Amino acid sequence: MVRLFSVFSLRNLLVLSVALNVSLILRVLYEKESRVISGLSLDNSREALRTDSMPSEAHATEREHLSMPSSSSSSSSVDSNGRDRVINLDHGDPTMYERYWQQTGDKSTILIPGWQSMSYFSDAGSLCWFLEPEFAKEIIRLHKIVGNAVTEDRYIVVGTGSTQLYQAVLYALSPLDAVEPLSVVSASPYYSSYPLITDCLKSGLYKWAGDAQSFNKEGPYIELVTSPNNPDGYVRQSVVNKSGGILVHDLAYYWPQYSPIAAAADHDIMLFTVSKSTGHAGMRVGWALVKDEEVAKKMVKYVELNTIGVSKDSQLRAAKVLQVVTDGCKYPTSEEGSLFDFAAHLMEERWKLLRAAVRQSGLFTLPEFPPGSCRFLNISFAPRPAFAWLKCEAPIEDCEAFLRSNNILTRSGIHFGVGPQYVRISMLDRDENYDVFVDRLSTIHLRQSMQGR
Amino acid sequence: MVRLFSVFSLRNLLVLSVALNVSLILRVLYEKESRVISGLSLDNSREALRTDSMPSEAHATEREHLSMPSSSSSSSSVDSNGRDRVINLDHGDPTMYERYWQQTGDKSTILIPGWQSMSYFSDAGSLCWFLEPEFAKEIIRLHKIVGNAVTEDRYIVVGTGSTQLYQAVLYALSPLDAVEPLSVVSASPYYSSYPLITDCLKSGLYKWAGDAQSFNKEGPYIELVTSPNNPDGYVRQSVVNKSGGILVHDLAYYWPQYSPIAAAADHDIMLFTVSKSTGHAGMRVGWALVKDEEVAKKMVKYVELNTIGVSKDSQLRAAKVLQVVTDGCKYPTSEEGSLFDFAAHLMEERWKLLRAAVRQSGLFTLPEFPPGSCRFLNISFAPRPAFAWLKCEAPIEDCEAFLRSNNILTRSGIHFGVGPQYVRISMLDRDENYDVFVDRLSTIHLRQSMQGR
Repeated sequence: MVRLFSVFSLRNLLVLSVALNVSLILRVLYEKESRVISGLSLDNSREALRTDSMPSEAHATEREHLSMPSSSSSSSSVDSNGRDRVINLDHGDPTMYERYWQQTGDKSTILIPGWQSMSYFSDAGSLCWFLEPEFAKEIIRLHKIVGNAVTEDRYIVVGTGSTQLYQAVLYALSPLDAVEPLSVVSASPYYSSYPLITDCLKSGLYKWAGDAQSFNKEGPYIELVTSPNNPDGYVRQSVVNKSGGILVHDLAYYWPQYSPIAAAADHDIMLFTVSKSTGHAGMRVGWALVKDEEVAKKMVKYVELNTIGVSKDSQLRAAKVLQVVTDGCKYPTSEEGSLFDFAAHLMEERWKLLRAAVRQSGLFTLPEFPPGSCRFLNISFAPRPAFAWLKCEAPIEDCEAFLRSNNILTRSGIHFGVGPQYVRISMLDRDENYDVFVDRLSTIHLRQSMQGR
Repeated sequence: MVRLFSVFSLRNLLVLSVALNVSLILRVLYEKESRVISGLSLDNSREALRTDSMPSEAHATEREHLSMPSSSSSSSSVDSNGRDRVINLDHGDPTMYERYWQQTGDKSTILIPGWQSMSYFSDAGSLCWFLEPEFAKEIIRLHKIVGNAVTEDRYIVVGTGSTQLYQAVLYALSPLDAVEPLSVVSASPYYSSYPLITDCLKSGLYKWAGDAQSFNKEGPYIELVTSPNNPDGYVRQSVVNKSGGILVHDLAYYWPQYSPIAAAADHDIMLFTVSKSTGHAGMRVGWALVKDEEVAKKMVKYVELNTIGVSKDSQLRAAKVLQVVTDGCKYPTSEEGSLFDFAAHLMEERWKLLRAAVRQSGLFTLPEFPPGSCRFLNISFAPRPAFAWLKCEAPIEDCEAFLRSNNILTRSGIHFGVGPQYVRISMLDRDENYDVFVDRLSTIHLRQSMQGR
């Protein structure tokens, strides 16, 4: 252990230095580019971020899975990076996007008078009567320019985040008169919320049936295909090879900042959300593209029973934000540039930093991705997912506990249907938190940490 | 029938004339008062309402209960009141409030920049981590000035409308390890959505058990007490007199425009919504005041699982709107006056018109309410509920079908646990629709309608 300690001290100093250099070089390069376009320093605009929008720190140890981030990011800078500062990367809170939206200024600002949008109804005559027509229009525009999904001959169903739409799909696909609940499966590692949401009310309509790879029950089932996958970022296809299955594609991360857009997805049921496309998690808005009219109708019915529609205010704001994104793609020389360029650069930078830190530390491994051609960005690149699916190598057995003892909060692999040697780490936090995280990861002492437990 | 026809023709002409006179007198009186205060004609501001916000007409006959208003209000005036124009009063869409909010102008306008409220979290350290602190503050301010609910020693849980909070309560109160689902009851006539929402997923946690008055099962149960009641407007108390029951108070209509505020409600679990207090149904925001910390925590957990929180945009807008309402109460001489004065006047006028029409027609009856003292408005008055619970007298057996044959869409009593001789009618629609409705109700020919079926 003593030997390890000294080895890691030296190694870690090296990796810290390398990481900071790479970070500085990349940032200088990218910011120079931005300044030429916008005349605005990203650092300045970052500093202008309201500190009162940052969550406060509290209750670091009593957190529950998926519950509030009892401890969250503070607003201190890298320079004042104390070891006792808790970095919460458990949730995929997409606050890294704030910096882009600051640059768009008034373009993305929305003004809602007190008398507007008072009715329950957005478009009483349409199948999804609570869908704002303006939002529907912008969804189609965005998919058309990005080329990530076919919108023709589809019904759009809006939901309070794609989380509600997932439940709407389960409701829509489950026969009301079935003798036993419909099985719901997904290949592990699967999104940790799927089993929790599916089983939380002990529904007689549907039931979580675990890992799709080992599913061998006869009869109808639903297979969830998350692609790129949450948590590991791989592009996926259905794995259950049986009749009677209905596929649901969760495409929350199928955007060019995370993964090459190989082709327009053309599935029966596709789920999207603004949380991961534009970074507006607080809006709670998602959308489904649905081929079958009856399925779409039943999904609408669920959202009606569950929440009598979806916030109009957020839909109007989402329409505005998508409009700015699409316009930014059409006119990339605009002041703020394209959201996807911004986010793609940032994700590339972050993944480079992370891989450098992981490579040097020798304590962890990360998934490797082959590069692919992106028809939107017109380049070939390897995926840079919204989450890092980190594996702790031996002798570390519980990766989440190991990182927690270093005040880095992540989500354990056990919630994703695999073992505790894995954790999921959000890559979408604010710059100052991400920087502290990578810095700390590269300087973790195995001995110190193991003693601390 | 021929005799009835001639009698009703004369009667109806009379009632139409009386109703129009009462309407004109009341409006002149109220508008004169408003003009003195604001220098603004209500009719002018009403005309300024955007017509593009009105739902379109379609599919009048194929409507389903609680589904989209396939046919809805058009924007034509009373003068062009054709018999074929469908008046949809099935839903409690509170569009009558648009007129008030127009008068508040910029005061109630909200501006949200693109970079704001992007995180999932509103107040990471608090029990309800997705509750905007500003909204919580305004909830307390409003209850304090109106005096309709005790807020001390309560947790506030925000929901996507009180509909979601109702489900959160069921989840929070149901033991996870129970051998059979918890019974949920409410005295009939009960809110038509309760049974539908409770049973839609065939939950193993809870189950709709019908009319509370005939409930006699042993063991724990939940009793829903809606007061004033939806649909009939009566003030209510618990009716099940057994041990093991948990009361949930739905106080959506306990506001001074509908009912005298006799005292501050002081129950364990109380539900409210902006839809019926300020008229902002499109926001999808409600709140619960909860005494027990564990119950509040489990409710938060449900909202987290169901929708990962509640739209921040709508919460910010709701905060603004409640602030304007409270300020309007504090400074009633302001330009727009108090929301409650506006709505109380309008509801009084509407109920007078409705009672005049019903009295003269002889086809219907309405509930009668004793007057009560209101500690907020400092006067005594009889309730003027948000819904009219109309009974068709013999020979009409199916009141909903009878009114539908006259192109008035209402919700049948069968959905509220009683017979088809009753219907629920929204009293909160826009002026032009309400006027056409009262006018038409007073001129319905029994013979003509019965033939038309």
